Amino acid sequence: MTEFPPGWRLGVVQEVAPPGVADLGPGYPGPDLHPVGLVRYAYARALDEFGSAALAYGDNAGALPLREVLARRARLADPGGVVVTAGTSQALHLLGTTLAAPGQTVVTDRLGYDYGRAILTSCGLRLAHVPADADGMDPGALDDALAASDTAFVYLNPTFHNPTGQVVPERRRRELLEVTVRRGVLVVEDDAYAELGLTSAATPPALAELDPDGVIRLGTFSKTIGPGLRLGWLTAAPAVASRLLRHGLFHSGGSLNHLASLAVAVMITSGEYDQHLDWLRGRLRSRRDALLGALGDLDVTTPDGGFFLWLRFGAGQSEDDLMAAAAAAGVRVAAGSRFGAARSPRIRLSYSLNRPAELASAGRALRTAWARSGALPERISS
Amino acid sequence: MTEFPPGWRLGVVQEVAPPGVADLGPGYPGPDLHPVGLVRYAYARALDEFGSAALAYGDNAGALPLREVLARRARLADPGGVVVTAGTSQALHLLGTTLAAPGQTVVTDRLGYDYGRAILTSCGLRLAHVPADADGMDPGALDDALAASDTAFVYLNPTFHNPTGQVVPERRRRELLEVTVRRGVLVVEDDAYAELGLTSAATPPALAELDPDGVIRLGTFSKTIGPGLRLGWLTAAPAVASRLLRHGLFHSGGSLNHLASLAVAVMITSGEYDQHLDWLRGRLRSRRDALLGALGDLDVTTPDGGFFLWLRFGAGQSEDDLMAAAAAAGVRVAAGSRFGAARSPRIRLSYSLNRPAELASAGRALRTAWARSGALPERISS
Repeated sequence: MTEFPPGWRLGVVQEVAPPGVADLGPGYPGPDLHPVGLVRYAYARALDEFGSAALAYGDNAGALPLREVLARRARLADPGGVVVTAGTSQALHLLGTTLAAPGQTVVTDRLGYDYGRAILTSCGLRLAHVPADADGMDPGALDDALAASDTAFVYLNPTFHNPTGQVVPERRRRELLEVTVRRGVLVVEDDAYAELGLTSAATPPALAELDPDGVIRLGTFSKTIGPGLRLGWLTAAPAVASRLLRHGLFHSGGSLNHLASLAVAVMITSGEYDQHLDWLRGRLRSRRDALLGALGDLDVTTPDGGFFLWLRFGAGQSEDDLMAAAAAAGVRVAAGSRFGAARSPRIRLSYSLNRPAELASAGRALRTAWARSGALPERISS
Repeated sequence: MTEFPPGWRLGVVQEVAPPGVADLGPGYPGPDLHPVGLVRYAYARALDEFGSAALAYGDNAGALPLREVLARRARLADPGGVVVTAGTSQALHLLGTTLAAPGQTVVTDRLGYDYGRAILTSCGLRLAHVPADADGMDPGALDDALAASDTAFVYLNPTFHNPTGQVVPERRRRELLEVTVRRGVLVVEDDAYAELGLTSAATPPALAELDPDGVIRLGTFSKTIGPGLRLGWLTAAPAVASRLLRHGLFHSGGSLNHLASLAVAVMITSGEYDQHLDWLRGRLRSRRDALLGALGDLDVTTPDGGFFLWLRFGAGQSEDDLMAAAAAAGVRVAAGSRFGAARSPRIRLSYSLNRPAELASAGRALRTAWARSGALPERISS
């Protein structure tokens, strides 16, 4: 099924499925979605244009050419609150060790990005999980959680949520921010998928747009250009950005990823990044639709953006059985329990890594396997 | 004096001296020492050879092609204990938040790299300073410091020490390791200048070579290729490396700087990196000698490697006066107190950033200014 190009081998990349296995597990952009040629050209131009300055210690907050275009894209008046990061993972490590002390609590959704949580727990932080309804985190339960814990910050992922694909509507965003503002607690908004909307519908304003003083917003080029760049950014109130920039890490090393910043600045300024985004959204839409089509009547909501389908199964069914049936059918999937699903089984399928034909085939194989094992609702398990 | 190429402007690079000021302050490689063309070519080849795998999430410990060549260069049997980092600063942040808890102590030299120390204190760690003699840190005083504190690790910089240029001889290395092994305390060996020896004399074995189980050695390409890459590595006992790699940062983001790793792997494998190192050492030797020659009879030891001259002045002299005289002469220098010098004035001069003619001119200006202000010993202050 999935065929990887030659460079995609263990020891080079983080993970790769064995031959013959269709990998719908990880949230990786597919090998054919990385704009290799554009990146090659962008590095060459950045080194031509900036010369040795591209190899020097970069400005602590990140090279201004990138921060300026990021500020414009985020509709900020100036780049004063924009800090270049080495990706969302590095940003979470930084926030978890500067805005938080070991033993403090991070308040977050019951369902969420497992590896992001792992970074925070690796920083010695506790997690408090708040339940959600169809519109996102419950504001009353958030208030209770903040009252009950020594909270460092609230960690949310309100747009194209990983794993559920959910978009928190503007009204709920305002309700949640009413709570965090009243409690005086910072919010970290993980917006990794913000630029990957797959419909013409506008997404609600970012939390950071609704409350610029109280929200740190994390962006990344990992899902749009490639995680191998290790490049992201954050926006924050200038005072919060200054507080982060007081960390010795910046004084010593300067920009957290300088050459990559200048290469991407060149890609954005030339218009190539936006052209690539358009192309990428089209590719992801085809992939999402191919997988959805093959899954038939399984209980899954069509996500408006991001990389993931989130499948719900009845409480009487077993996650272990579902995982075993998928594995036997030659498809890797991600168990919902990884993301905090507990009461009834959930499965996350990523449509980003494989091509539409591969996804259709994998989707059909999953549906057949789960029907055989009795995992489907009766009406479709024939 | 110093003339920077156009890209070297604030907002792009971390710091740049005003026009007309010769900057002997920071430990920056000079604009003309960065191998811009080689780096441009290396990125292009890495993207050609590895394609989209160079933009994917990289292997958590770092891409094997780089780890293998680094292991060979460090005379390790295999790359099991090699972890790619995003430079020494990022590595210190990682070590300071994984091998240490806030409130614990890092034991280090009385004189040392100020920005490295700032990273550790930003991690909430205390510093305990141990005095040194002409051969380096005093082993008995180290033993006392370890007995008196809850030590996370010992932080040493035994080869071409910043700021003193000192190389700790093998015998003293063994004495220090006898203490840390007996006390069961890890050593972090900052070896940023290891590849920048300027004489044919061999340097003593690295601490990590003398005690592979108890020493984490930090390497960087910042001083040899360029800090803008944000690329370094560490070597550690495989069990220690595994402990670091359990941090959520690696599971989430994979390699700490993937594309840069593959570009540098290509540069090393082709032999271009070693050719560049040879060239770079020659350039640094000329710079060191030009500055030493201009300083005349000032009290300074000729360093066998690295970037720095360390100037000693009598206890009756004032650091503030020395700094003011240098500034008035249009030369930026680094005050010894930044690095922990307390009892009598010290000044650090970096010869890496400027060309020999500029260094000679700056050195003469300094000597004249300090002579006028009475800062020189009588025999040469005429």
